[in-house]
Amino acid sequence: MKTLIIVAHPQRNESVTQTFFRDSLANLDNVTWHPIEPQFDVKEERQLLISNDRIILQFPLYWYSAPALMKKWIDDVFGDTFALAPEFVMEDRELGLVVTTASAGDDFGAGKPEQFTMSEILRPFEAMTKKVKMKYLAPFVVHQFGYQTEEQHEQLLTDYQQYATNSDFQDFSGQTKWFLAQLKNKMNKLDNEYDIIMVQSLYDQLESGQDELKDLQWTLSMIKNAGEDKNGNNGLD
Amino acid sequence: MKTLIIVAHPQRNESVTQTFFRDSLANLDNVTWHPIEPQFDVKEERQLLISNDRIILQFPLYWYSAPALMKKWIDDVFGDTFALAPEFVMEDRELGLVVTTASAGDDFGAGKPEQFTMSEILRPFEAMTKKVKMKYLAPFVVHQFGYQTEEQHEQLLTDYQQYATNSDFQDFSGQTKWFLAQLKNKMNKLDNEYDIIMVQSLYDQLESGQDELKDLQWTLSMIKNAGEDKNGNNGLD
Repeated sequence: MKTLIIVAHPQRNESVTQTFFRDSLANLDNVTWHPIEPQFDVKEERQLLISNDRIILQFPLYWYSAPALMKKWIDDVFGDTFALAPEFVMEDRELGLVVTTASAGDDFGAGKPEQFTMSEILRPFEAMTKKVKMKYLAPFVVHQFGYQTEEQHEQLLTDYQQYATNSDFQDFSGQTKWFLAQLKNKMNKLDNEYDIIMVQSLYDQLESGQDELKDLQWTLSMIKNAGEDKNGNNGLD
Repeated sequence: MKTLIIVAHPQRNESVTQTFFRDSLANLDNVTWHPIEPQFDVKEERQLLISNDRIILQFPLYWYSAPALMKKWIDDVFGDTFALAPEFVMEDRELGLVVTTASAGDDFGAGKPEQFTMSEILRPFEAMTKKVKMKYLAPFVVHQFGYQTEEQHEQLLTDYQQYATNSDFQDFSGQTKWFLAQLKNKMNKLDNEYDIIMVQSLYDQLESGQDELKDLQWTLSMIKNAGEDKNGNNGLD
């Protein structure tokens, strides 16, 4: 899977968050970090889109939408007939969003200060994705990066790496598989024998954990089925 | 009430719809038609905003949002602290949207080709309006202007004029009051006696109709109250 990350941030070089994200991708394969400049070549942008499987639009939320620079890119590059009927050249590729906000996550939703959920606020992107027959990924939203602890940043880093490069990031087994691949990759680059043994042991542990997990899931589904009544309710309420 | 109509249309001069709207305002007072050019002076725009009571953002829907030009205007003019705490300089003013779309009205909504309602698609503008403590007017959406009949265009013309200039356009009595004011205005400009008599008679008819309407509404509310059961249901289902 090849991923294109289109970054539109009016103060990109001063943005701590964008620098953090860019650096976190440094050692990963098949990811293209692609910041938008005010002048771009529509033809080149379209070529780039076609040569990738996962397209990520990455921007800070300005007035509950993308900054004008990102909107210009969308209007010009996706505009006209490029991604529409009859060819639908982007069909079945994925479209993800990485959105940073200055508001707290708890502020979004009915009856809360920001009134609407992020899912609602990002509907125009969901509608656009559907229009060009792409697959809409769950948006990756980062609230108040600057207030996060170092531990939260570490978690964010691997979550972000997976959003960028893991073809199956939304369930636990997909995440474990991705970690295994990362470890294997790391092993191949090691030359100190002690390090190799360490990483190999971690790899084996994770891999056998995967099998145990499958057993556990099977057992759980048995218990769940037994508990369901004839109406398909699970009897837990 | 003073109204400012901010028009962002990348091909404004070729747009039949925008020309139609502009011309329809020609004889109305207290409306400023204000097309955005790619270069604008943020200070001047803010002055203009402050000197109006109803602000209307008018644009064609591009990828389920405003064109980049309108977004740039919003980012720059509303940006930073202009309309936010602690002053909230736009507080209690109205914000309306005039949105033209190439899709049919029937296409919007759950399970329909466009998936979401226009209310949902325009949520970012609603959230923005709330953020600066303005009042959000029901968006004025024009679907497929080019396919409308001449009769539909005539209706659209008075609806649009009211959206631009009627402080109370959302109920019937507010609309009648607006028509009366329009007629009075027309009368003052007439010099042919026959025309004056004609318009005066139309005015009287509309005005006395207003009183009859009030009687009718009172009777209806009596009937409705009598029909309501103790739970507040109206007994009509």
